[in-house]
Amino acid sequence: MVVNVNQKEIRIGMVGYQFMGKAHSHAYRDLPFYFDPKIKPIQKAIAGRNEAGVKEAADKMGWESYETDWRRLIERDDIDVIDIVTPNHTHAEIAIAAAEAGKHIITEKPLALTVEEAEQMYDAVQKNNVTHMICHNYRFAPAVQFTKKLLDEGRLGKIYHFRANYLQDFIMDPSFPLVWRLKKEVSGSGALGDIGAHSIDLARFLVGEFKEVVAMMETFIKERPVGEMSGGLNATSDNRTLGEVTVDDAVAFLTRFENGALGTFEASRFAGGNRNKNKFEINGEKGSIRWDMENMNNLEVYFTDDEPGLQGFRLINCTEELHPYTEAYWPAGHIIGYEHTFIHLVHEFLNGIAENYQPAPNFEDGVKNQQILAAIEESAETKQWVNV
Amino acid sequence: MVVNVNQKEIRIGMVGYQFMGKAHSHAYRDLPFYFDPKIKPIQKAIAGRNEAGVKEAADKMGWESYETDWRRLIERDDIDVIDIVTPNHTHAEIAIAAAEAGKHIITEKPLALTVEEAEQMYDAVQKNNVTHMICHNYRFAPAVQFTKKLLDEGRLGKIYHFRANYLQDFIMDPSFPLVWRLKKEVSGSGALGDIGAHSIDLARFLVGEFKEVVAMMETFIKERPVGEMSGGLNATSDNRTLGEVTVDDAVAFLTRFENGALGTFEASRFAGGNRNKNKFEINGEKGSIRWDMENMNNLEVYFTDDEPGLQGFRLINCTEELHPYTEAYWPAGHIIGYEHTFIHLVHEFLNGIAENYQPAPNFEDGVKNQQILAAIEESAETKQWVNV
Amino acid sequence: MVVNVNQKEIRIGMVGYQFMGKAHSHAYRDLPFYFDPKIKPIQKAIAGRNEAGVKEAADKMGWESYETDWRRLIERDDIDVIDIVTPNHTHAEIAIAAAEAGKHIITEKPLALTVEEAEQMYDAVQKNNVTHMICHNYRFAPAVQFTKKLLDEGRLGKIYHFRANYLQDFIMDPSFPLVWRLKKEVSGSGALGDIGAHSIDLARFLVGEFKEVVAMMETFIKERPVGEMSGGLNATSDNRTLGEVTVDDAVAFLTRFENGALGTFEASRFAGGNRNKNKFEINGEKGSIRWDMENMNNLEVYFTDDEPGLQGFRLINCTEELHPYTEAYWPAGHIIGYEHTFIHLVHEFLNGIAENYQPAPNFEDGVKNQQILAAIEESAETKQWVNV
Amino acid sequence: MVVNVNQKEIRIGMVGYQFMGKAHSHAYRDLPFYFDPKIKPIQKAIAGRNEAGVKEAADKMGWESYETDWRRLIERDDIDVIDIVTPNHTHAEIAIAAAEAGKHIITEKPLALTVEEAEQMYDAVQKNNVTHMICHNYRFAPAVQFTKKLLDEGRLGKIYHFRANYLQDFIMDPSFPLVWRLKKEVSGSGALGDIGAHSIDLARFLVGEFKEVVAMMETFIKERPVGEMSGGLNATSDNRTLGEVTVDDAVAFLTRFENGALGTFEASRFAGGNRNKNKFEINGEKGSIRWDMENMNNLEVYFTDDEPGLQGFRLINCTEELHPYTEAYWPAGHIIGYEHTFIHLVHEFLNGIAENYQPAPNFEDGVKNQQILAAIEESAETKQWVNV
Repeated sequence: MVVNVNQKEIRIGMVGYQFMGKAHSHAYRDLPFYFDPKIKPIQKAIAGRNEAGVKEAADKMGWESYETDWRRLIERDDIDVIDIVTPNHTHAEIAIAAAEAGKHIITEKPLALTVEEAEQMYDAVQKNNVTHMICHNYRFAPAVQFTKKLLDEGRLGKIYHFRANYLQDFIMDPSFPLVWRLKKEVSGSGALGDIGAHSIDLARFLVGEFKEVVAMMETFIKERPVGEMSGGLNATSDNRTLGEVTVDDAVAFLTRFENGALGTFEASRFAGGNRNKNKFEINGEKGSIRWDMENMNNLEVYFTDDEPGLQGFRLINCTEELHPYTEAYWPAGHIIGYEHTFIHLVHEFLNGIAENYQPAPNFEDGVKNQQILAAIEESAETKQWVNV
Repeated sequence: MVVNVNQKEIRIGMVGYQFMGKAHSHAYRDLPFYFDPKIKPIQKAIAGRNEAGVKEAADKMGWESYETDWRRLIERDDIDVIDIVTPNHTHAEIAIAAAEAGKHIITEKPLALTVEEAEQMYDAVQKNNVTHMICHNYRFAPAVQFTKKLLDEGRLGKIYHFRANYLQDFIMDPSFPLVWRLKKEVSGSGALGDIGAHSIDLARFLVGEFKEVVAMMETFIKERPVGEMSGGLNATSDNRTLGEVTVDDAVAFLTRFENGALGTFEASRFAGGNRNKNKFEINGEKGSIRWDMENMNNLEVYFTDDEPGLQGFRLINCTEELHPYTEAYWPAGHIIGYEHTFIHLVHEFLNGIAENYQPAPNFEDGVKNQQILAAIEESAETKQWVNV
Repeated sequence: MVVNVNQKEIRIGMVGYQFMGKAHSHAYRDLPFYFDPKIKPIQKAIAGRNEAGVKEAADKMGWESYETDWRRLIERDDIDVIDIVTPNHTHAEIAIAAAEAGKHIITEKPLALTVEEAEQMYDAVQKNNVTHMICHNYRFAPAVQFTKKLLDEGRLGKIYHFRANYLQDFIMDPSFPLVWRLKKEVSGSGALGDIGAHSIDLARFLVGEFKEVVAMMETFIKERPVGEMSGGLNATSDNRTLGEVTVDDAVAFLTRFENGALGTFEASRFAGGNRNKNKFEINGEKGSIRWDMENMNNLEVYFTDDEPGLQGFRLINCTEELHPYTEAYWPAGHIIGYEHTFIHLVHEFLNGIAENYQPAPNFEDGVKNQQILAAIEESAETKQWVNV
Repeated sequence: MVVNVNQKEIRIGMVGYQFMGKAHSHAYRDLPFYFDPKIKPIQKAIAGRNEAGVKEAADKMGWESYETDWRRLIERDDIDVIDIVTPNHTHAEIAIAAAEAGKHIITEKPLALTVEEAEQMYDAVQKNNVTHMICHNYRFAPAVQFTKKLLDEGRLGKIYHFRANYLQDFIMDPSFPLVWRLKKEVSGSGALGDIGAHSIDLARFLVGEFKEVVAMMETFIKERPVGEMSGGLNATSDNRTLGEVTVDDAVAFLTRFENGALGTFEASRFAGGNRNKNKFEINGEKGSIRWDMENMNNLEVYFTDDEPGLQGFRLINCTEELHPYTEAYWPAGHIIGYEHTFIHLVHEFLNGIAENYQPAPNFEDGVKNQQILAAIEESAETKQWVNV
């Protein structure tokens, strides 16, 4: 007997197909397997300038068709959603065009190169009344969602501290080439916008809005071999011509949140041995929570009112039925990974479309994040505290 | 432009659709996304006795069609592979029928209820010259494959010790019902065959063959409410009728390996706080390795010839390009999960079919594992050491 | 103004002055500093055969005088306590002589070479009505004492499992010499009596009496260079003459406790990277506890009735005022070390003398431990389960 | 035979006898037991204003005599060293008087309340040519000393990052009384001078001098019950009168080191679950090192040139003979604790006196530390970066 599916569908068009394109494609693919989305995503078309590359990507990642110009995606009326996974300098143009064409939009972070661009994007989605999200996927780790739930329930009381590190080491070798992520005109900033932006989003999600920041930024290796600009995280180059690195290798900043909490942040690509050490600790009046993406299923939770003598951080494997999103997967103790954060984000996006609410993080969050990024850059330059 | 796929295909028929059915279905679904299998799996049909249940499973998990009698799958000539994820007492009949029909076979572990059954199954696949695997998926965690590579290279020298725990706690509550996993006639044994068998497989894979064993087994809670026999790991029951638990809640055993190493093993479903603590440590002449499924991306490796003063277990996040299977996924530090072990197993299975070699673990491994299970049960009963 | 101390004193005479002699000496020295013992230990005299060695030890470790024959200590009427830290084969003779002279006795473990000897020792202390202890110091880690308290309060309910490893690696190098710990006639056994005996003591202390055991033992390196027999743990030898190692390098055994719990044990000196990995895990009806001597201040505690979703092992730093013995030291989080376990043991010993009760672990525990050691050796030889 | 000691002696007089008095007293007591100091410390006299208290402390902690006025200690010619463990506002007067009397000096940190005071103290010790140290004891953890050795050998190459947290939680309860540590006129500052000063010292020791800082400080609980001002870390109060907390509960600051490294620091007494979490991570060109006082025997070390695939932080138990100071203690894996850091510091102090060199950290370090503390306070107030 043939299986007969009668589910409402939504048709996705994706621009770009590198690292993030893969993560998003997989999320569309796996979402209906694990969850029961109200509308089912159809991987309709993918766009990229290099025909051979985009064709191969389409085939590999399950897209029905491809285009070599992203504008074609926007013109096609069999596309409902535009998903933008291109380098940062292209986000604004694509998103605005998509919004004006009435497409719903997911875009990678940071939203844009500047606050001005970001605001234009936000204006466009509001005017055209489309659903929009920015891909701060780490919010969607079950342990992070569970943290949010505990905070919303007041389980930690008033928050005193948020400290976050996002540490990587993939460009420590001076022979690592000058990929697009190292060029300001393409990426906006370096460690700041690429990984620091994630910590900022987690902070806003969990603690609240930033009031003011003071920052320092540094580029440890100022020139690098000119490589293939489209190179990914593992790009290599034999090219001996050196070009200038125009973004930060590392950034650190202090924050006062509007609710009075203190924030300390550090993002670096020069922290050897830290492959993707995206971690935070929150200290509140009634307890503390620690999380580390490298062991993303675990959460450490401490309560000040636990029985004396038995107080200590509990190591919670957030894989039980009652943890957010995990019922869809496996029995407790069978862990999930990085890719699942994207499934959850896309799930939330489609729910928003289906149920007509605006999910988060969205372009408004993108604008606020961008304002913080801008304030950090300004602070690093002027050596002043900057109000956000 | 429409994507046009021209890849050799292989058509899968799966019998059963619970926990393991989901894991296998997902593996077929995701394999071509991450890897380039020489032949592409097509989820052709799924079989189950309950029509509503199997229909829903087929729809949810991406199967093209369903059957309510597994024999239909074997009759169908549009099915090349039979994948058996049913309770243990049915493996033999289905596998032998499948083999005789010339189908390739994957089956869940343990292979059968008895050594005799297991040997008949192995005879059948050999006679009919089909490809066969048994689903000891933990072998396929990248960190475990990497352990195997290090051992094969002699990096640990002569092996002295292998110690393994497989600890769970999901049936500690006495009100947990008498599911099929707790009935000997359906499951063969309890913690022993369900989880101890995995530790045995890891031991055979990494250290070698068992020479002799001595064991003790225990059933801590001897009667339980009769529940829905098809219930999964999270089954509940209000039924006040009690039935006898006829399998072990826990087993511990000592082993001498043929190469002289000593093995200690423990499998229990009564180890509170251990959700799925499948861990081992190997101590060799030149170093040691530790692994724990709950943090399956990590491996701890110690070398005796590291520089004095700088000796210590290295915590290796096995997510780099050069770790087994991981190149297919994400940049270093972005972890994968439980489900990926099945993708790798299926990948190996299809490679075997495509390239005409018999992959492992296969029915021969299943027979050897079953012999060890039988020796352990005999030892627990006779209170003697038993040769394997 | 001169400080004037008026505290009842007790005069200690110690036989032996190597590793354990140092640990005991320090305990006497530091006890009154941290605690308020009812009687104050005076390091009266130390005995050793080598005059230069014992003189230097006396000077270094704060003993008022020395003797070159232990019998002199027993004859001296200014000695109240005999502390025996000599190799195992001498314990019985010294202890019996001390008991007959009415001295209180602390001795290192194992109590003796055989059960018979051990029983004679126990008879002697009972007949002569002296206070006696055996130096299973690990009982006295605050985290272990706290574990005992939780168990006594029933916080873990019925106990299902006790699993213990005591792993070391200091003799893995085949050039490590044939020290006294490797000669059966001096030490009784190898890893078994030296470190396994500690795990057995912890098991008896925390879980209860052993009912039966089955064991395997192994000597991986059967011959070693004949070195200085008095050599300590870091002894070296250039001697090319090889002698036979007559004790076990490793032992593993299974146990059924009288209360129905299952025990699994392993002690090895061939577990590379494990310097002094003395660890256990207890699983009970209501929770679990894990401890590891290498991080001895920490305890991991899990309760099955913790709020769902917030269940996990709590990492408790047992350095708070309300943890056993820790009030005497530093504020919470300021850790103590190995040597403090001896201070606590001596504290308990002197309390027993002062308040006229028999502290534990004592010679009765020593006899029971010895019976288990003997049963394990018998089981390893006969390959049978042996009743204790 | 009576032991006869003929060792050169040095006579200590200590001012104060609370928490730090105990730590220092113990260090003098234990130093000759573990090490062979060139001169042996004699605990000659202790001073405190409360006669009953100081008498009891003298008795308990092994001091030969006591005084109720610290000036008497300085007058006495049987005192060679003045050890200052009083509240911070008294350090300067006592130290200057001691220096002018030709006494060698150890003082607790921070050196003084102001840079000016600190400089006067430094002038005094220089003019009077006495040996001086400031008690930044964490430098003397074996793992920290080993870190220093690795850095000096260039094992980490150029340093990019130093990040340190010193987190405690002992005053989170609003009913915790207004002890002297919470009054600016007595302590100078709060978390900053008490614990942040230790992180600053570690940074200076391991990375180098600070160039500039920017900081924020916060007092979360601004009024507390007026308690016994001499109260220790565990003080309690029933007094309902509230007084103003005049120091910081938390401070965070960013630093640029003179060598170009970036530093991020946070010190807080409001980080629940962190009893004494004094930790740092250093990232350099060739590797990284992590340390945490709560597990002070362990060091995590990563090298970028470890074999690919086998790269990871090594967990090194710094208890081997070849780690700094550890040969004096126990075999590898037998850990030491907080108190031993003071033994090592005193050892270095006495070595300096015996061998006529000026040990570190000393008053010069104290002045530099104080300058950084002052710059941090200025920055927090002016909201500007401040040059050190």
